[in-house]
Amino acid sequence: MFFASDNWAGAHPKIAESLTREAAGYAAAYGSSDLDKRIEARFNELFEREVAVFFVGTGTAANSLALASVARPGGVTFCHFDAHVNADEGGAPEYLTSACRLYPVEGENGKMDAEALRGHVHRFDVPSVHQGRPMAVTLTQATESGTIYTLDEIGEVSAIAKSKKLPVHMDGARFANALVALDATPAEMTWKRGVDILSFGGTKNGCWCAEAIIFFDPDMAEEMPYIRKRSAQLFSKTRFVSAQFEAYLEDGLWLELAGHANAMADRLRSTLKTGNRARLAWETQSNEVFAVFDKALAEEAKAKGAKFYDWLVPRDMPHLVSENEVLARLVTSFATTNEDVDRFLDICTGA
Amino acid sequence: MFFASDNWAGAHPKIAESLTREAAGYAAAYGSSDLDKRIEARFNELFEREVAVFFVGTGTAANSLALASVARPGGVTFCHFDAHVNADEGGAPEYLTSACRLYPVEGENGKMDAEALRGHVHRFDVPSVHQGRPMAVTLTQATESGTIYTLDEIGEVSAIAKSKKLPVHMDGARFANALVALDATPAEMTWKRGVDILSFGGTKNGCWCAEAIIFFDPDMAEEMPYIRKRSAQLFSKTRFVSAQFEAYLEDGLWLELAGHANAMADRLRSTLKTGNRARLAWETQSNEVFAVFDKALAEEAKAKGAKFYDWLVPRDMPHLVSENEVLARLVTSFATTNEDVDRFLDICTGA
Amino acid sequence: MFFASDNWAGAHPKIAESLTREAAGYAAAYGSSDLDKRIEARFNELFEREVAVFFVGTGTAANSLALASVARPGGVTFCHFDAHVNADEGGAPEYLTSACRLYPVEGENGKMDAEALRGHVHRFDVPSVHQGRPMAVTLTQATESGTIYTLDEIGEVSAIAKSKKLPVHMDGARFANALVALDATPAEMTWKRGVDILSFGGTKNGCWCAEAIIFFDPDMAEEMPYIRKRSAQLFSKTRFVSAQFEAYLEDGLWLELAGHANAMADRLRSTLKTGNRARLAWETQSNEVFAVFDKALAEEAKAKGAKFYDWLVPRDMPHLVSENEVLARLVTSFATTNEDVDRFLDICTGA
Amino acid sequence: MFFASDNWAGAHPKIAESLTREAAGYAAAYGSSDLDKRIEARFNELFEREVAVFFVGTGTAANSLALASVARPGGVTFCHFDAHVNADEGGAPEYLTSACRLYPVEGENGKMDAEALRGHVHRFDVPSVHQGRPMAVTLTQATESGTIYTLDEIGEVSAIAKSKKLPVHMDGARFANALVALDATPAEMTWKRGVDILSFGGTKNGCWCAEAIIFFDPDMAEEMPYIRKRSAQLFSKTRFVSAQFEAYLEDGLWLELAGHANAMADRLRSTLKTGNRARLAWETQSNEVFAVFDKALAEEAKAKGAKFYDWLVPRDMPHLVSENEVLARLVTSFATTNEDVDRFLDICTGA
Repeated sequence: MFFASDNWAGAHPKIAESLTREAAGYAAAYGSSDLDKRIEARFNELFEREVAVFFVGTGTAANSLALASVARPGGVTFCHFDAHVNADEGGAPEYLTSACRLYPVEGENGKMDAEALRGHVHRFDVPSVHQGRPMAVTLTQATESGTIYTLDEIGEVSAIAKSKKLPVHMDGARFANALVALDATPAEMTWKRGVDILSFGGTKNGCWCAEAIIFFDPDMAEEMPYIRKRSAQLFSKTRFVSAQFEAYLEDGLWLELAGHANAMADRLRSTLKTGNRARLAWETQSNEVFAVFDKALAEEAKAKGAKFYDWLVPRDMPHLVSENEVLARLVTSFATTNEDVDRFLDICTGA
Repeated sequence: MFFASDNWAGAHPKIAESLTREAAGYAAAYGSSDLDKRIEARFNELFEREVAVFFVGTGTAANSLALASVARPGGVTFCHFDAHVNADEGGAPEYLTSACRLYPVEGENGKMDAEALRGHVHRFDVPSVHQGRPMAVTLTQATESGTIYTLDEIGEVSAIAKSKKLPVHMDGARFANALVALDATPAEMTWKRGVDILSFGGTKNGCWCAEAIIFFDPDMAEEMPYIRKRSAQLFSKTRFVSAQFEAYLEDGLWLELAGHANAMADRLRSTLKTGNRARLAWETQSNEVFAVFDKALAEEAKAKGAKFYDWLVPRDMPHLVSENEVLARLVTSFATTNEDVDRFLDICTGA
Repeated sequence: MFFASDNWAGAHPKIAESLTREAAGYAAAYGSSDLDKRIEARFNELFEREVAVFFVGTGTAANSLALASVARPGGVTFCHFDAHVNADEGGAPEYLTSACRLYPVEGENGKMDAEALRGHVHRFDVPSVHQGRPMAVTLTQATESGTIYTLDEIGEVSAIAKSKKLPVHMDGARFANALVALDATPAEMTWKRGVDILSFGGTKNGCWCAEAIIFFDPDMAEEMPYIRKRSAQLFSKTRFVSAQFEAYLEDGLWLELAGHANAMADRLRSTLKTGNRARLAWETQSNEVFAVFDKALAEEAKAKGAKFYDWLVPRDMPHLVSENEVLARLVTSFATTNEDVDRFLDICTGA
Repeated sequence: MFFASDNWAGAHPKIAESLTREAAGYAAAYGSSDLDKRIEARFNELFEREVAVFFVGTGTAANSLALASVARPGGVTFCHFDAHVNADEGGAPEYLTSACRLYPVEGENGKMDAEALRGHVHRFDVPSVHQGRPMAVTLTQATESGTIYTLDEIGEVSAIAKSKKLPVHMDGARFANALVALDATPAEMTWKRGVDILSFGGTKNGCWCAEAIIFFDPDMAEEMPYIRKRSAQLFSKTRFVSAQFEAYLEDGLWLELAGHANAMADRLRSTLKTGNRARLAWETQSNEVFAVFDKALAEEAKAKGAKFYDWLVPRDMPHLVSENEVLARLVTSFATTNEDVDRFLDICTGA
């Protein structure tokens, strides 16, 4: 009963096989091998246009270097208060952008409120070296709160950014989960709605370590080779990343895995919705479920082997849990089984 | 005939197998799994003392974060002019130490000259905010020039550093190759000779992506967890690194692979030494061979499928090659075969 | 009618005289002259204990380097959302701390709400490299909103910081104005209430360019000489700063000047309080007054020569001004005259 | 007998007067006052073209921010080993360029050897993220060794830079001393010979604190306002810098002061050249003189009140001084008197 995080799972067998297949033989290093080139081209297909692709090692690196590519002195990036860049990356986005700032925006359940975003952006309308200047807007899809921006909502955030000529970055650590939930194409969920740069994550969805920064306008990526090297994210044997993506993208494996994870979360959601010792904290649409548990129940579940994290109550929901309750985050993955989910639900429902 | 670099090889089958074995099941993320802990403990054994171990993704990261752990405002690190940190890491050591400086020291064939080092260090004897202050000495073992510091030479460099209370870092991207060549123990080649921090590289010697920063005094590593996270080098599925090291260190695989690479280089060296269209540029002791080729020969070899890089002539050897010659770097690896070497030597000797 | 900012004034004649007096003769550079030492010692007296003093060139530098002295990887500093470090320093605090983060805290009229601060600090109770770690609390006295923390309020903020072993920094760009308003001693308003590091500003109160970073525990300042030099804030002819402070602190000139500025603000406040075309936006206690003007009145005043800035409406007071109103900031200084104030008030009251 | 440094002198009376004159009245802050604008325009005249001007507080800031304006990831700046940026600025150039690197070039007596520079620049001919990429060439005029590049030598350095499209920066901390020595115009010594950015120093030549960064192509300065603010170098009361430059540039005061300092150095040089207990270490042309003294003589001179620094023997002149000798640096300034020089020379010659 592993619901602690989707990164507690290992790798899907096909990912491991692909890697093993590439273990033999020689290939040019630092991203210049045939395989690397082939996989980069694969992303063109996937996104229905020519893109620039940069492999890096962690999601934090993908986000931080994406922002570094548009960084400038005094730069300010708008993000949700609970965005991974702001809440969970140990200051890497600031460090790897040479100290650019994140500007937290409010919004329910992990999604920036468009009106609030517009208001904050407008505060910078009069150019001022004192105040700094906007440099980007970043949104997470699916969010850290398990919610998903609709395509229109993505378009709305982008429009605000574009009205100020700001590039839009999407943190897609759980890109596949959102895509499947929305039943959209990669193009529709990104550049067709104004996204300029994407952190395309494979790690949480069945890879070992496979993250790509995608630029929908390759001209924007001009400085990236130096930025990536300077940040120690250029792998010599890049093909071990490429080989993961090869299997990941083949025959829709990535969507299948995400679909499975989402379905497992649905199963959790539908039962918890009606529970009395456990209830949904808020509605989610991806592979993350947030539930309020009686403390006793949470302890019982853990004692019976369930793995999950108690979660910080969101700043804007101070009354979410009572004194004898806890907020729990439950994350499903490609590896989650029906049996595990049911066993866990049995505990929750006292079955 | 792949002699371009040891990072053109893929992974040793045992490394790939170990990874595949760990693909299934769940494990705590971010370095806290049982496997991670077991491998960390394995390093204690290896070095015959309690060490602190931090896995990172690239050799550049290992070196840069090792230096970051001892960085301080105005800090200056002494290294050989041709050291990887100074010549080949795109400014990452400066970037990830918040702009500390590298101070290049002269010395033949990639090894810092102890006398020169002593002289440079002494230039900082009078404390001065203007000049900055020494913060570390870093040496590479085996060096980028294919040479190896003897144990006594390591001790001599360390003694100079220690006389000024400076920590000593060793870039061990080719640690195993040096160890095998010297027939020393890991402890003898490091802390017993004054080394404080080691970049222990597995990638060039048969892993995909396995680098570890080793602190021989765990107290020195206090800030490392935050430094690593801030630099986006904390992998969520750390066990994919641990699993590589597990196989790498088991039954002396790592030494066997390095021994093989060195032997292949020996084979190159012994023949090239006596050639007339090709000759050794200087003596080396590890898995790198530097040779001066007639341009015509170099072209012929490449036309016949040999892969190697033309190399920049060292600053201090301006007369090494004549106008119709080139300097070539030949690197062997765990994957190099006798056949490949012989085929290449046949070309060189006109056989 | 100059109410744009206290930095639109030049220098008090005694400051200019003191500088001229020091123009002749030689003195050791970089802060080691007799004058420099004498003025540093003067601060010991002023604060009734041994302090470490570092002169720098701007208030932004003072704040940024004060925070740099306690910076650490992953570090987070709590401040009010409208604090100068967060709103008006162009990212310098982040840049000069090697990318540490500011964490904005809510609170009315520029003062951090203690309860809110406590809540935010507690969010970091479980150590986590992902979330980062608290490194300092900084408060501004007087605040950018013209308000003043009472001594007890300073103590309360400090107590929260101290409960987590966090150093407390005070941005004292308008230190003298607050001190006079509270009728407190420098010691009472700082270290006796838990402040560890102070940006002691002279520039806004009659100096040209005189800012000092004061450490109440000199041991905390160990790295400062290198930090200051690295940030290009070590002046060769430091005595031109010392000479300003010499006159500034002599015979209570600084308190006299601040008292005058505050009195001029009082005069503005008492009349605007009762106006109908102009009203106080909120209560202030220092040399800043915030007023809501009819747009027509604001334009009329400007046409008649009044200088002041329209100000951004605070985030938490969205309904402060109606559509035909503007928020104006009025700042008085040592140079403001009764005549100027009265002339301005006549316009406002339609006299 | 003050020969320790030109920054031991205070300010010329006309500088002090100008400041005092500007003490009264109001002026817009942060560089937008009439005086600021007038002085910026004065630089257009001085350099016979439209330039962009940025005032900063220290020479270190001027150099560091000039380089920051052309910084890019992986960037490398070529400079002489003994250049102030490399030897005396505590790492500020690296810190304020977000960790770009300085690449030391050899050359006699503080001047980069053009041939050596060409060789080093060529080492970067093959683009490589590993090696980094050239971003600028910086030369000092007059050099830290007291020597001066001829106009042709400046042109030669620039031509090498321009052949690689690199901008050329000149550290002009002692710009006036060089200009007077060469009897050239400001334009001739800068943009007419390929210089793109100049650190124009007033502090060492009779100002308190007056440094300007000059861009000969204003388009290159686009990011500077944000860069300057981010580095805490934007003064609120900028007019206190402008007022210094106003007097400095009026009626050729700056050239007169530099001419005097140079003449005083000439006087030292002509006598020391022929001495037997003291001799010139090498020929200089500006207001710095380097002399080799018998230790006994150096001690005697100091005992009699002479102030000067013992200097580090240049790396490339290891045999310059014998065991009972020391290298001394003697710096003259606008404030040096004939009497002081003669008194000192009497000691040296035993008169």
